[in-house]
Amino acid sequence: MNINISIDNLWVIFGGILVFWMQAGFAMVETGFTRSKNAGNVIMKNLMNFTLGSLIFWIIGFGIMFGSDIGGVIGMPKLFGAVDGSAYPKGISSYTFLFFETIFCTTASTIVSGAMAERAKFISYCICSVAIGAIIYPVAGHWIWGNGWLFKLGFHDFAGATVVYSIGGWCALIGAAMLGPRIGKYSKHGKSTAIPGHSLTLGALGVFILWMGWFGFNAASSMSITGEGLLEITSRIFITTNLSAAASTMTTMISTWIKYGKPEVSLTLNGVLAGLVAITAGCDVVTPKGAVIIGIIAGIVMVYGIEFIDKVLKIDDPVGVIGVYCINGGLGTVLTGLFAAYGNSLGVFYGGGFNLLIIQLIGVIAVGIWSVVAATILFRVIKAIVGLRVTRKEEIRGLDIEEHGLESSYADFQSIDLNM
Amino acid sequence: MNINISIDNLWVIFGGILVFWMQAGFAMVETGFTRSKNAGNVIMKNLMNFTLGSLIFWIIGFGIMFGSDIGGVIGMPKLFGAVDGSAYPKGISSYTFLFFETIFCTTASTIVSGAMAERAKFISYCICSVAIGAIIYPVAGHWIWGNGWLFKLGFHDFAGATVVYSIGGWCALIGAAMLGPRIGKYSKHGKSTAIPGHSLTLGALGVFILWMGWFGFNAASSMSITGEGLLEITSRIFITTNLSAAASTMTTMISTWIKYGKPEVSLTLNGVLAGLVAITAGCDVVTPKGAVIIGIIAGIVMVYGIEFIDKVLKIDDPVGVIGVYCINGGLGTVLTGLFAAYGNSLGVFYGGGFNLLIIQLIGVIAVGIWSVVAATILFRVIKAIVGLRVTRKEEIRGLDIEEHGLESSYADFQSIDLNM
Amino acid sequence: MNINISIDNLWVIFGGILVFWMQAGFAMVETGFTRSKNAGNVIMKNLMNFTLGSLIFWIIGFGIMFGSDIGGVIGMPKLFGAVDGSAYPKGISSYTFLFFETIFCTTASTIVSGAMAERAKFISYCICSVAIGAIIYPVAGHWIWGNGWLFKLGFHDFAGATVVYSIGGWCALIGAAMLGPRIGKYSKHGKSTAIPGHSLTLGALGVFILWMGWFGFNAASSMSITGEGLLEITSRIFITTNLSAAASTMTTMISTWIKYGKPEVSLTLNGVLAGLVAITAGCDVVTPKGAVIIGIIAGIVMVYGIEFIDKVLKIDDPVGVIGVYCINGGLGTVLTGLFAAYGNSLGVFYGGGFNLLIIQLIGVIAVGIWSVVAATILFRVIKAIVGLRVTRKEEIRGLDIEEHGLESSYADFQSIDLNM
Repeated sequence: MNINISIDNLWVIFGGILVFWMQAGFAMVETGFTRSKNAGNVIMKNLMNFTLGSLIFWIIGFGIMFGSDIGGVIGMPKLFGAVDGSAYPKGISSYTFLFFETIFCTTASTIVSGAMAERAKFISYCICSVAIGAIIYPVAGHWIWGNGWLFKLGFHDFAGATVVYSIGGWCALIGAAMLGPRIGKYSKHGKSTAIPGHSLTLGALGVFILWMGWFGFNAASSMSITGEGLLEITSRIFITTNLSAAASTMTTMISTWIKYGKPEVSLTLNGVLAGLVAITAGCDVVTPKGAVIIGIIAGIVMVYGIEFIDKVLKIDDPVGVIGVYCINGGLGTVLTGLFAAYGNSLGVFYGGGFNLLIIQLIGVIAVGIWSVVAATILFRVIKAIVGLRVTRKEEIRGLDIEEHGLESSYADFQSIDLNM
Repeated sequence: MNINISIDNLWVIFGGILVFWMQAGFAMVETGFTRSKNAGNVIMKNLMNFTLGSLIFWIIGFGIMFGSDIGGVIGMPKLFGAVDGSAYPKGISSYTFLFFETIFCTTASTIVSGAMAERAKFISYCICSVAIGAIIYPVAGHWIWGNGWLFKLGFHDFAGATVVYSIGGWCALIGAAMLGPRIGKYSKHGKSTAIPGHSLTLGALGVFILWMGWFGFNAASSMSITGEGLLEITSRIFITTNLSAAASTMTTMISTWIKYGKPEVSLTLNGVLAGLVAITAGCDVVTPKGAVIIGIIAGIVMVYGIEFIDKVLKIDDPVGVIGVYCINGGLGTVLTGLFAAYGNSLGVFYGGGFNLLIIQLIGVIAVGIWSVVAATILFRVIKAIVGLRVTRKEEIRGLDIEEHGLESSYADFQSIDLNM
Repeated sequence: MNINISIDNLWVIFGGILVFWMQAGFAMVETGFTRSKNAGNVIMKNLMNFTLGSLIFWIIGFGIMFGSDIGGVIGMPKLFGAVDGSAYPKGISSYTFLFFETIFCTTASTIVSGAMAERAKFISYCICSVAIGAIIYPVAGHWIWGNGWLFKLGFHDFAGATVVYSIGGWCALIGAAMLGPRIGKYSKHGKSTAIPGHSLTLGALGVFILWMGWFGFNAASSMSITGEGLLEITSRIFITTNLSAAASTMTTMISTWIKYGKPEVSLTLNGVLAGLVAITAGCDVVTPKGAVIIGIIAGIVMVYGIEFIDKVLKIDDPVGVIGVYCINGGLGTVLTGLFAAYGNSLGVFYGGGFNLLIIQLIGVIAVGIWSVVAATILFRVIKAIVGLRVTRKEEIRGLDIEEHGLESSYADFQSIDLNM
């Protein structure tokens, strides 16, 4: 057997496990940044997102994404993980590839739960996860990674800033907007109130988990470390990914210090994620210095973006996912059109002219339109059938007790006092 | 040097680290699902389990498990990690193999602490860990993985549903039964009361950790990704493992929804583990569809199994490990006799006749008898020498303060109120 | 392309990600073992440590450490991750190497935050992180790993017990001493009071994370698993690392049982880390039995070391890092001079005479002097410019609210009571 195949599969498997681990990261971030009365519900949604997503993507989504191309728009689906094979990366086993792609798919849908937290019905989120994994993600995924029209156009989204994060972000935006804000979030006069989460330490743990997992997400998207030049690219991705995250985090910290007088913790934690999202599209083609600049831009844009969504659009996004994933997913993809320094299509700043930039813009807009339209239809259908939002009483008492019969996720914690 | 050896060792090392990580998963699950007054004690037991298990398995257990076969029953032990080498997988370094096997051994013993939580003496659990690592696990391990009689018979337990999980589960059953229920668990009339844990979020984190680690547990048991056909098998294991877990989780969620009127969170979290345990024996030889069916069966059986143990047998198992590991470890091994679709011995549903099924039943029963007998002797000896259970006063005040002099694992948490 | 290069880079990348994960471990240990009113601040410091460290080490530190040697003392720096290449391990890509080394650097500086927790100014810790990553760590790193004078002398510090841990530990010692103890730590008569942390479970999770990450830290320092003999060494490191940690943990548990009448939880958790630090220098050259003895020594020394620092030196080290990292980093390096059983320089107990032992002592002392002098200058400069310590009022109210405007890291946790 060709030994390169063993090595490349090991590489993709390793990356896949790291990306799986991001599911725990999202669960911790979303739980930590929301209230304790909904903690069990947030966990349950994250669990169902991965569970249902794994099943539905295997059944149908994978086929739609990677099946034989039909007019650039959609793949000819075969069911249960079977495709005709043309879209497989060279040398990667079909099971390895299905595993890796399944986990990418569930990453897109898990983002939605953050924006819809603390008020969406459990059943409605389950349906949403299935629809994203079955249709919304695979169709756009086909365009970009499944030999579809954006792929043919030369659109560059290496690890999925647009495919994964902006799709998740757009669905989150529509979902949160249609749900409306949580009770108490906006005053009569429209003033926004911060509703603090119940465990910043769990949230921070989640951010560290995501940072770790992102190395797999970005680097293992190379799908090979034995192919010509691919080891160099893969290694560089570790540096660009890490530097962008570091630069974004530092920038966010400083921005909040200037803006609010003190370095703000939860925004800075989101700063890590903003930098990671923004570098995802171009992590393979930008220089380390380019990555730092992208990170700085991402940090600033995220701080103002979250404020804009919260105070101007008045969309209640408990975890800040729209500002992090939707905005930076698109932004990072576009910035690749400026900063691409390696590969066939160079960016504006590296002598490639405006060609790549325009393609990147087209891709970001096209995926945005698709996501917004599809998500709008989806949530309207869900609303009509089972309803989107829990009742006022359920929201106030908490989704743990109302949706799951769970007294509290921390039921015994009062015993602390008894011990003292 | 043969480059395949480097790759295969890297693969097993990678898997071993993932399995090590499961120790943290067990610690979080067991702590989260029990009360805060015992949190430090649970942590300490998990720590000692791994620590003492690592030492004793190196000193003696490894030799018993993998030493030259004596009559199919036991290995001729050499001490301190040395064996005569015949049982090593081809190309794996003796140190790599010892590392991987050590961590598997400690996985068996950590399960016991969950069922015995909140009332077992610290010293008695330490002795139990040593005995499992020195004798109980290695002897059965020798039968199946060390060229013993079950191996020769053709018993198929790829990654250890029987070797690791059912042994742990049986010892847990005997230990919990001999300890008796926690104070307040059953009313005078025998009615069972749920005693909620102190942190569902930590428990959920633990489940995500276990899911991640299980990929290493199952897939790296292939011990090679360069050997003929082994890459294909290894890759498929990722899919079967993930699909079984997903199917079991979904099934558990739906089952509890039907049974209790609401989708129950902590049972659903156990549903993940049930699906993972059940696929462990046959993950290499079942199809993805077979894995889904195994997961569905595991989810249903676990829900009713835990209820049966709790309400009919009236054995108090705080974390639900008997229903998850003991029942599904055996069940999954037997189901392999039905669903095995690849390899030399096919299952009943794939034209192999009843041969494999009968062998699987023999193995499960034999290991069950060995575990029950050995655990009964062990716990009786422990009871006679140091006692199994803490006093009533100690149990009520909590094992943290009584066994470890720890005021509280969250001693400072009251300062939260002071801050507000 | 030479396939060995792909494998070795994969190995180092894998190790690097494990070491990155240790950042989360340090964050959880430090947060868990300190009070909830400072939890956000501890998280923020850990985040900034990694962020600023990643940036500054890329900009300048890497060049100082690995640039062309100038008189054995310092490397000729090139900026932004570029060096002339002579110091690269054979076959490792420059990006892979930069990634791995960056993360090692940030490990040194994160240790400092533990000892300075709950009273150091946020800005002063940021400056400290930058200075360690820019100068203090790279200079000593150059001596030992960058072809400097200690390297030429034959000093053996395989994975960085001295380079990483003792430097971090010495800076922690100076920092904590110059800051002075927390309010309430010592009575008028100098009696030490234990100030318990707010979450032993998060602390324990952190310890498991560190144990996991340490396998990458120690083993991936081999930089190759294809080179002559390197697979054997790498595999053995897993065993020596694990056995030393296990022996140290068990020893600490027993020591505290004898000393305090009960097996103490948080010291035992530190026992894991003591064993891991102590084996770091010689993990590649000691036997498994040697590793156990080193672990036993580390466990005992740590228990008495922490008490000595707390009660005799009266330095307030909230997390116990000085006893763990400073003492055991040096101790483990010296013990390598006794227990080295493989390689070119054997230890005293293996017939190598006192040569290696003396070199090890010289290295430990030289790095100690460098660290103490540099850290003293650093903290004096910081004190003069921005001040080291928060005000009395800020310390009492907590650094979360005072330094970051964060009401509480667990702001919503009171809702638990409302739910019941």
